[in-house]
Amino acid sequence: MATQTKALIAQGGGPTAVINQSLVGAVLECRKFPQIDRIYGALHGVRGIVDEDLLDLTQETTNNLELVAGTPSSALGSTRDKPDRAYCKAIFETLQAHEISYFLYIGGNDSSDTVRIVAEEAKAAGYPLRSIHIPKTIDNDIVLNDHTPGFPSAARFIAQAFMGINLDNKALPGVYLAVVMGRNAGFLTAASALGKKFPDDGPHLIHMPERAFDPNAFLAGVKATFDRHGRCIVAVSEGIHDTEGKPILARLAGELQRDAHGNVNLSGTGALADGLATLVKDRLAIKRVRADTFGYMQRSFVGCVSDVDQREAREVGEKAVKFALWGDRDGSVTIQRVGNYQVDYELVDLDQVAAKTRTMPDAFVDAAGTGVTDAFHMYLRPLLGSGMTNEYRLQTSNRVAKLRRPG
Amino acid sequence: MATQTKALIAQGGGPTAVINQSLVGAVLECRKFPQIDRIYGALHGVRGIVDEDLLDLTQETTNNLELVAGTPSSALGSTRDKPDRAYCKAIFETLQAHEISYFLYIGGNDSSDTVRIVAEEAKAAGYPLRSIHIPKTIDNDIVLNDHTPGFPSAARFIAQAFMGINLDNKALPGVYLAVVMGRNAGFLTAASALGKKFPDDGPHLIHMPERAFDPNAFLAGVKATFDRHGRCIVAVSEGIHDTEGKPILARLAGELQRDAHGNVNLSGTGALADGLATLVKDRLAIKRVRADTFGYMQRSFVGCVSDVDQREAREVGEKAVKFALWGDRDGSVTIQRVGNYQVDYELVDLDQVAAKTRTMPDAFVDAAGTGVTDAFHMYLRPLLGSGMTNEYRLQTSNRVAKLRRPG
Repeated sequence: MATQTKALIAQGGGPTAVINQSLVGAVLECRKFPQIDRIYGALHGVRGIVDEDLLDLTQETTNNLELVAGTPSSALGSTRDKPDRAYCKAIFETLQAHEISYFLYIGGNDSSDTVRIVAEEAKAAGYPLRSIHIPKTIDNDIVLNDHTPGFPSAARFIAQAFMGINLDNKALPGVYLAVVMGRNAGFLTAASALGKKFPDDGPHLIHMPERAFDPNAFLAGVKATFDRHGRCIVAVSEGIHDTEGKPILARLAGELQRDAHGNVNLSGTGALADGLATLVKDRLAIKRVRADTFGYMQRSFVGCVSDVDQREAREVGEKAVKFALWGDRDGSVTIQRVGNYQVDYELVDLDQVAAKTRTMPDAFVDAAGTGVTDAFHMYLRPLLGSGMTNEYRLQTSNRVAKLRRPG
Repeated sequence: MATQTKALIAQGGGPTAVINQSLVGAVLECRKFPQIDRIYGALHGVRGIVDEDLLDLTQETTNNLELVAGTPSSALGSTRDKPDRAYCKAIFETLQAHEISYFLYIGGNDSSDTVRIVAEEAKAAGYPLRSIHIPKTIDNDIVLNDHTPGFPSAARFIAQAFMGINLDNKALPGVYLAVVMGRNAGFLTAASALGKKFPDDGPHLIHMPERAFDPNAFLAGVKATFDRHGRCIVAVSEGIHDTEGKPILARLAGELQRDAHGNVNLSGTGALADGLATLVKDRLAIKRVRADTFGYMQRSFVGCVSDVDQREAREVGEKAVKFALWGDRDGSVTIQRVGNYQVDYELVDLDQVAAKTRTMPDAFVDAAGTGVTDAFHMYLRPLLGSGMTNEYRLQTSNRVAKLRRPG
């Protein structure tokens, strides 16, 4: 009979539409290994580990787990705590007290760093702990991954949102700006391009944080598009900054909130969008200028999930357990693309991904710096999954001859 | 052989997710009447009629029309022009020049008023014109209708958005406010309640324009909810006002834009949401306060359509042509509920609906004025259509006993 062991899983950082798929993928996979006696879930990420707020997920029915898997956002709750060394020591002490052998943490860059430090603590204490980081982030900014779970569904939401915005703006023309999440990486903002079908469709300009934002060039771009099409749709990343790296929002808003990670709080306010709209109104004298901030909706909207994302999120959870049980090292599960389109999963060392940030490669950004390349379309399209809606127009060539004012 | 006649159709006001269903329903129905030789579509509403920017929709393939029907927003384009008597006279002159016998206009309150005036012009000139108004509005504020096409899909979007917001906010607790469209009627804001499943689910407070907004009562409500649940989600209508009828936005924003209808421009800015968030931060000293303005997304999001709404939008278009061809009077097509759930369509006189505004009946608003009744749930649920997503939670009773800090 195998030695009885326990696993603990938690969810950190911003929720995604499919993060519970990874949770359930890991829990169900644990059930296949007779040596795992119990699987615990920590409430609200590392905070729940430190506070010993643990659920015994072994008690969950498989049926309810499957239903939870289809529910967006973190079923265990999340946290914005960024553990320092002392915090990680406290995490380790809980793991040790409960005789946890397998520590699985679903999260982004910051979470992988936490897993790395906890693994170090265990090693230093001579405690046999296997620590695996399971990736998720709508920002798609974890290195060594083709993409990360959560991003495809958020990208689908953005593409569909802009498809609708474009149709709306075509019916009632004007300038429309929308601010999209993505602190350092422009992947999500760039996804807006996937909603385009016809040459005059918006977004006409896409401002990603990978390129410095010049207000004058921005205004010139809006003017040129407006002069040509009588309308202009702009997708703007919340993280746009000037050539010195200073956030554009900092020029517009006096005070900035910062979260515990030292990150400027870019979401949950309409300041950037409104500031840019005011700039367009004042400087270009265009009357109908509208600005929206997509905000939290893009992260957990329930009706817009990529089936490819669901499947992969499930699989990274499952693979994490396989790597933990069959492997001989800690690490972070990564997604590798093999063919167009299929993926494989690899485990990489934690210090290779921890606290590193991936941004849009140059090959994905067009020469003007305000659009995406075909390579980006090829990259993103398969991730959006099946059932994407499409836009159809009436034939504009069937004009009726004018009778009152001919010609 | 029947006398050859022509029909003209146009789309006015804010686009909806299903307004093209009504267009296509009318066009396809026209094809069944041999006496209708041609059906024209005016580009950008009444503006296209005055300018004679007309498409011959007779040329469209049935297949493409069906694809256009499934595309959100107004395929013919729309306008915010509010025709006065002279403008309506110009509309009538185009109809007369092209020998139009049937004038069909898809739109909201303002559009029905336009149809009424054009019908009067025709009558005064002794010209045989049959004028029918086809209802649409996401605000659901046309009188004499159980509901109006476009509202169910927008309501579904709001319900699904708040379902996701609630899950997100549950994972990372704090105060969250979202501003929802609806100038005078709170139906759309109230739809946020349909995303709730568990007693502690948000939105916890719903502020509709049917009840005066008192900032102090609002703050007290947020505080009470936050003290109880550790979080609070508030749905706020863009049209909230104080006891004197002054918009709350007017207290927060210095200058207000007005559109050609004399309406205060409430959309396309984050000012109201940000102002309320600042109020909560300053007065309640709660740290994590986020505010979103749902903006234009809620009107034309492509991935979130009610199949009931699609069907009914198609049918009001079809019925408009039947009323025009078989009836002996002008009017506005209305939706009447018969049973739970089925509808019937009736034609009412234009002056009964024109430029009138329907608001939430008292029976739909709870005693506190910050929530909805079961009657509202019964009213709205069947409109949202099939395939609504659901929320599932882990069993919180399966707690693991604390070992480090027992108790």
